[in-house]
Amino acid sequence: MSLFSKYETLIHEAMKATAVRNYYTPYPEIPKFYAEDGDAKAKAYISTVMNNNFAELKQEAHDGWIGEEISPYLQLGIGVKYPNSSADHYVAMAEKAQLQWSKVSIEDRAGLLVEVLERLKTRFFDIAYATMHTTGQSFMMSFQASGPHSNDRALEAVIEGYKQLTSMPAQATWTKPMGKFDLVVNKNWRAIPKGVGLVIGCSTFPIWNTVPALFANLITGNASIVKPHPKAVLPIAIVVGEIQKLLSENGLDSNTVQLAVDTLDKPITKKLAEHPSVKLVDYTGGSVFGEYIEGLQHKTVFTEKAGVNSIILDSARQLAPVMQNIAFSASLYSGQMCTAPQNIFIPEGGVKTDDGLVSYDDAVKLLCDSIQGLVTNPKAGAPTLGAIQSDATYKRLQDASGLGGRVLLASMPIKNEEFADARVASPAVIELTREQQNVFNHECFGPIVFVVKTKSTDDSIALAKNLAKTKGAITCGAYTTDNAIQSTIETEMNSVFTPVSFNFTGAAFINSHAAFSDMHVTGGNPAGNGSLTSAEFIVKRFVWVGNRFM
Amino acid sequence: MSLFSKYETLIHEAMKATAVRNYYTPYPEIPKFYAEDGDAKAKAYISTVMNNNFAELKQEAHDGWIGEEISPYLQLGIGVKYPNSSADHYVAMAEKAQLQWSKVSIEDRAGLLVEVLERLKTRFFDIAYATMHTTGQSFMMSFQASGPHSNDRALEAVIEGYKQLTSMPAQATWTKPMGKFDLVVNKNWRAIPKGVGLVIGCSTFPIWNTVPALFANLITGNASIVKPHPKAVLPIAIVVGEIQKLLSENGLDSNTVQLAVDTLDKPITKKLAEHPSVKLVDYTGGSVFGEYIEGLQHKTVFTEKAGVNSIILDSARQLAPVMQNIAFSASLYSGQMCTAPQNIFIPEGGVKTDDGLVSYDDAVKLLCDSIQGLVTNPKAGAPTLGAIQSDATYKRLQDASGLGGRVLLASMPIKNEEFADARVASPAVIELTREQQNVFNHECFGPIVFVVKTKSTDDSIALAKNLAKTKGAITCGAYTTDNAIQSTIETEMNSVFTPVSFNFTGAAFINSHAAFSDMHVTGGNPAGNGSLTSAEFIVKRFVWVGNRFM
Repeated sequence: MSLFSKYETLIHEAMKATAVRNYYTPYPEIPKFYAEDGDAKAKAYISTVMNNNFAELKQEAHDGWIGEEISPYLQLGIGVKYPNSSADHYVAMAEKAQLQWSKVSIEDRAGLLVEVLERLKTRFFDIAYATMHTTGQSFMMSFQASGPHSNDRALEAVIEGYKQLTSMPAQATWTKPMGKFDLVVNKNWRAIPKGVGLVIGCSTFPIWNTVPALFANLITGNASIVKPHPKAVLPIAIVVGEIQKLLSENGLDSNTVQLAVDTLDKPITKKLAEHPSVKLVDYTGGSVFGEYIEGLQHKTVFTEKAGVNSIILDSARQLAPVMQNIAFSASLYSGQMCTAPQNIFIPEGGVKTDDGLVSYDDAVKLLCDSIQGLVTNPKAGAPTLGAIQSDATYKRLQDASGLGGRVLLASMPIKNEEFADARVASPAVIELTREQQNVFNHECFGPIVFVVKTKSTDDSIALAKNLAKTKGAITCGAYTTDNAIQSTIETEMNSVFTPVSFNFTGAAFINSHAAFSDMHVTGGNPAGNGSLTSAEFIVKRFVWVGNRFM
Repeated sequence: MSLFSKYETLIHEAMKATAVRNYYTPYPEIPKFYAEDGDAKAKAYISTVMNNNFAELKQEAHDGWIGEEISPYLQLGIGVKYPNSSADHYVAMAEKAQLQWSKVSIEDRAGLLVEVLERLKTRFFDIAYATMHTTGQSFMMSFQASGPHSNDRALEAVIEGYKQLTSMPAQATWTKPMGKFDLVVNKNWRAIPKGVGLVIGCSTFPIWNTVPALFANLITGNASIVKPHPKAVLPIAIVVGEIQKLLSENGLDSNTVQLAVDTLDKPITKKLAEHPSVKLVDYTGGSVFGEYIEGLQHKTVFTEKAGVNSIILDSARQLAPVMQNIAFSASLYSGQMCTAPQNIFIPEGGVKTDDGLVSYDDAVKLLCDSIQGLVTNPKAGAPTLGAIQSDATYKRLQDASGLGGRVLLASMPIKNEEFADARVASPAVIELTREQQNVFNHECFGPIVFVVKTKSTDDSIALAKNLAKTKGAITCGAYTTDNAIQSTIETEMNSVFTPVSFNFTGAAFINSHAAFSDMHVTGGNPAGNGSLTSAEFIVKRFVWVGNRFM
């Protein structure tokens, strides 16, 4: 039985899900649904991998072994080394592999890629610990984000690719009535892959932000080079290893996907991105490098850069659950999510609630109390915050008090019971006036929350809209009980290509974008031009070519 | 009854056609299927329009009236003047109209746009004469290309747009099982138009090359400015007039589509294209300006530039019908089609046929005789050739004998019985060696055919492939009776994103790309990045934005 037949039911269910947009996942997000001994085995696996050459890749180390990852929990180098080769070597190998991979049928590609995801299921615990000790995510987020949620996103890309590539008939007979005779022409259509793809990862979500592009490249027939952030390699190395193994087992060139590791001192990203044979570039990371990527000529590029996410607070039935929700969204993984809220716009006139008007000051106090309550909660605090990934983010947080605003809540160290040296710090909450736009009009990545006192909800909307238009936004939260205001916020923020989540409380958070239902980065504002997983995310990776035969 | 209901059956039939890719048109290409008095009325219409201000547009002439079209048949200015305004004025009006048009439902947009096409059916004769006396196309080509074939392409864009915009549910309820409770989130998805579109027309196919982009912009909610070539305005002016009239009748802003006419002396294209509010640019024309368009930052652009189309001659059952077919393709509208063949690659060893090997010299002679026979045929010659549109094309043809090749067939004037002053000239056929790539490696627009003597069919393939890769190609013809060679040609040319038409004889010509079946410009090689009408041609014109509600 071919791998396609094996997964045909799953593929058709997933296709239906992309059309219906209701909740769907073939990969449960709770660890207990996977192997009982998964956790114990993964801990042992990680101990073996650390301070060793990573042996799971089918790549040769032409230029030795390199690696410089540091665990935010241990504050120690994890000592994993990866095979090193030159940029030219990676591209040459990818070009060779592309010739073969582009000839594999869409069905066989789909079957192979779903099989990869099924095998990754058995690695979710390994991947979770690898993610923890590179990104600083908590165990639960590491498991969910790098495991099932990444698999969902990868499957979604495979499914959209399968849908697009089967949207044209493989062949057809075209019969034109010409009066006395029929003109008959046989035709075929081929989806020709654009060329070698480069997928540039980030330091905080090394799998979630990489696999959609990687699987989109692969399903459309493009060999790919994964260039992870030098501080977050191990999680995606496990994924690439599994793909390479399956390719080899099926008699295919394992260089169809290669891992290209570099170091901060000797980066190879530009060399790879500028190589004339690299036709597709996917990038997640800071805006300056992202704009360089977007400026590359004769390449198809998809970016996810920085965005400034706003919360517009107008009114609510009750304010306490609202502030608890915002507190969690802002604290989760120490604000190191591209979807974390940064600017909380609150009108000076206060917030209307069922229990009467809550003054601006009381609303702000409620927010600060909610954050303080969450982060100091012995059970919830440390697991919510995770650890801070980079020195730069930690320094930015330390410097936040000097930004010019009034410190409402200072960041403080939080104890992680399991890891004594973990770099954990609670969010700083800073109050700014609406005139201090030079402070709040750019992304301050990490656990920094700005409360901005505005003149009115209209003022809040105008500020959030302008920010999204000029600086980009990936998401926006809004709280209002007024239908007219809700409609205005929706129209205004959508007009600058920003999605809005309204009145989220309880278990719904603006940070979460679910595969098969939510897009991620709309592609319309400066936060980036990519979008998971729209038709555009797929169709730009190949070209339809039609042939005609008499 | 809404316009959508009126055309719902047509829309669904057309949707089926895009999936099946068999022959389909709701607009017959034969004049006799339209009004009996259409021809006579159109002649009268054109007489009235000439030497007058064009009164069919709902636009004011803020800066007077301009126009400088010349009939290639009369060699006289046709004297039609169009309202003139500034680039800033057009964009400001378009932005205002966009606000309204973007709120019109996809169903209403589709209904309105199909109604436009139905009304244009009653103008096909007018449009045909307008096309003749601006482009130099023959009456029959003018009728077909600017009438039914353009309507087909416009409808195809509407249909693909309708398909894409209805591919996401308008709203959905997302229910995630959380164990003890369900998390329920209501969601909607909106296709937000990118912004004002600019469609830049060319001098030879003023409607066919304009309406796909124009209708793609409109169906996706983008107001548009049509900037025709200053020498070919009248045909598209009739189309814009019909759209504006229908918009007004339906209480919509007629500035949703505007005609922005300029002159060669005072061009406004760059000013329009560079305007920050113009987000979409579609362009058909020369490569130098096309590359400028492609280099514009923060714009979504689609281009059709120059390409060098090759014919690879390997073998054929009989050579006479092959050469007749090539002769017609190269002579049709004096080679002024982007799909006309330019380079005929013939191996020095000759061409295998059922009647034995035909030597290179005999094959070349047969080609020249076929062209000579066609153009001097009193009935077929002049109507096939049409007239030469521009002075530049005419001069290029006159200079062709000095290009360095051996003149096999000199261009000669051909008499047009109806128009004594028509600028009609037969193709020049020039023989080049394979080393004279500096001559044949760029587009020589117009009736210039290069016969290139190659070492072998493999050599021909390599030359054609390299040309397509480095200079671009819109189409390619190939003749072979050998399945292995056919497969090689298909693979090699497809790998540089060039479609191939095999063994076309009789009524099938490589020049013709049929709507609902063939794409046009694959978008993969330097001939341009647009493609009629793929999903990509549509989805890049809008952005999906999803909102979530609790």
